[in-house]
Amino acid sequence: MQYRNGVAAAAAEEETGVILGVDGGTTTTVCVCLPAASAAGGSPEKVPVLARAVAGCSNHNSVGEIAARETLEQVMAEALSKAGADHSAVRAVCLAVSGVNHPTDKQRILNWLRDIFPSHVKFYVENDAVAALASGTMGKLHGCVLIAGTGTIAYGFTEDGREARAAGAGPVLGDWGSGYGIAAQALTAVIRAHDGRGPPTNLSESILDKLKLSSPDELIGWTYADPSWARIAALVPIVVSSAEEGDEVANKILSNSVEELADSVIAVVRRLSLCGKEGKDSFPLVMVGGVLESNKGWDIAGKVTNCISKVFPGAHPIRPEN
Amino acid sequence: MQYRNGVAAAAAEEETGVILGVDGGTTTTVCVCLPAASAAGGSPEKVPVLARAVAGCSNHNSVGEIAARETLEQVMAEALSKAGADHSAVRAVCLAVSGVNHPTDKQRILNWLRDIFPSHVKFYVENDAVAALASGTMGKLHGCVLIAGTGTIAYGFTEDGREARAAGAGPVLGDWGSGYGIAAQALTAVIRAHDGRGPPTNLSESILDKLKLSSPDELIGWTYADPSWARIAALVPIVVSSAEEGDEVANKILSNSVEELADSVIAVVRRLSLCGKEGKDSFPLVMVGGVLESNKGWDIAGKVTNCISKVFPGAHPIRPEN
Repeated sequence: MQYRNGVAAAAAEEETGVILGVDGGTTTTVCVCLPAASAAGGSPEKVPVLARAVAGCSNHNSVGEIAARETLEQVMAEALSKAGADHSAVRAVCLAVSGVNHPTDKQRILNWLRDIFPSHVKFYVENDAVAALASGTMGKLHGCVLIAGTGTIAYGFTEDGREARAAGAGPVLGDWGSGYGIAAQALTAVIRAHDGRGPPTNLSESILDKLKLSSPDELIGWTYADPSWARIAALVPIVVSSAEEGDEVANKILSNSVEELADSVIAVVRRLSLCGKEGKDSFPLVMVGGVLESNKGWDIAGKVTNCISKVFPGAHPIRPEN
Repeated sequence: MQYRNGVAAAAAEEETGVILGVDGGTTTTVCVCLPAASAAGGSPEKVPVLARAVAGCSNHNSVGEIAARETLEQVMAEALSKAGADHSAVRAVCLAVSGVNHPTDKQRILNWLRDIFPSHVKFYVENDAVAALASGTMGKLHGCVLIAGTGTIAYGFTEDGREARAAGAGPVLGDWGSGYGIAAQALTAVIRAHDGRGPPTNLSESILDKLKLSSPDELIGWTYADPSWARIAALVPIVVSSAEEGDEVANKILSNSVEELADSVIAVVRRLSLCGKEGKDSFPLVMVGGVLESNKGWDIAGKVTNCISKVFPGAHPIRPEN
């Protein structure tokens, strides 16, 4: 099963015009504009990118549907404009967006795309995990991908087209291994240390310093002043630094998150039997997202891989370049 | 230290007109209109209530500042109207509202009250926990109060005027013992059972039935469609029923919540030494809110009291009538 094949088939019919590819995350959304001809064949490394545009969050669960659509519309318009093209040149749109969890999410986005593009344009709407997996496997949809950025999701595909996912349900529904989850646990630890329910932690001083607040009580107002998940998740580097400096509370938060992230991959691999009947078959494990990339001292990605390898020794970690 | 004394002193100066008393929660806000003369003395049981009005959430952290103000303004206007009075008859306004966590919260509400009432009106703005404690101690601010409704907070006062609080920081900041916290854990358990990260639970069927959804995947859209905390917390009775029927996951969620609620009281009592030097002095422990009231089989309040009494045998539980 090839992720690129669908797009390529559409492009092959019409060798002029452009294709828009969007990777929509909870913090950052990237749109690339490619010549339609390039997608019809050839190696994915050699696809010429005509233009690239970057915008903020396009996850409707985080910022609401209107803001998410505005971001997607704006980032596509900007990429087209940079490429010197307009909507009439578009042959296909490939949207891989976080927050696409249910057929109704996909249908809503498809209906909206049909409103803004000419009727002959082909649309492909998927969860961003699908694009993330393809980015690490040269387009082949086989194996498991773990995204841990502002949000987190594990998504897996078998060669015969079955798929499964775990986590990716957002902060209310327990994505504790995500950047948001890690940072929310750190903020909670500061509140608990302050009111006497939890042990003291260096996170208190470092987080208050970073946010220029004078007391943990002010964290409550800060937290609810803006519901954006990305704003909370931006505190992850402070948690990692505190853990590296030996803070026990920060270390415990990161260790719990490693376990959560590994559990989501293990659940997917088990449901799809990606590891074969004996549990030892090799499968690609693509790992992407800020939580897995940004740290060198406290190596979250390395520890997640270790946890998974203990259960499935055939897991073959792949870290695609950005 | 008497909560009623401040209001009474204001009223004593002017024996005509009315006083508004508002208890503002995250699910329900109640306003009573009393004759100013009545507050100047006499027993609190005998205060004649001229009118009573009920509205929704007035916690600005849950629904935002504009909606919270509208609720407060509307509930006060309705109580006045039912009492056949208008703004010019008001002598004092006593607002006890959840979400008042910091002096800036209080100041913001005071500024707004000054805009809508005549300049001679006296204002008293507190966290709703202050009114809840007073409701159980005949107005005396001494002891500890635990509120566990949609949100949760523990608030304590010493006879010499010191005060301390624990929890009350909302769902992002770990109020796991609250109605919202219990229900969010239950929703998370359904997602985890569905994607293979957690054990199966009867909560899946009972919650999907209640919400008329056909698959746990639809819970994600349902959860983020409306950010109101009260809507999530309304699922608590289902968690309690499942626990009563023996569901292990539901039992674990409630047991964790009992521990969280007890921990918040223990932290406050310890910081204020409400239990005396030997740890055995008696103190009032007022317990209010839907989570502590609604269940008979799985007795959350009883179990919280047991946890606290093991540490502080002098805790004297009081359950005020509604």
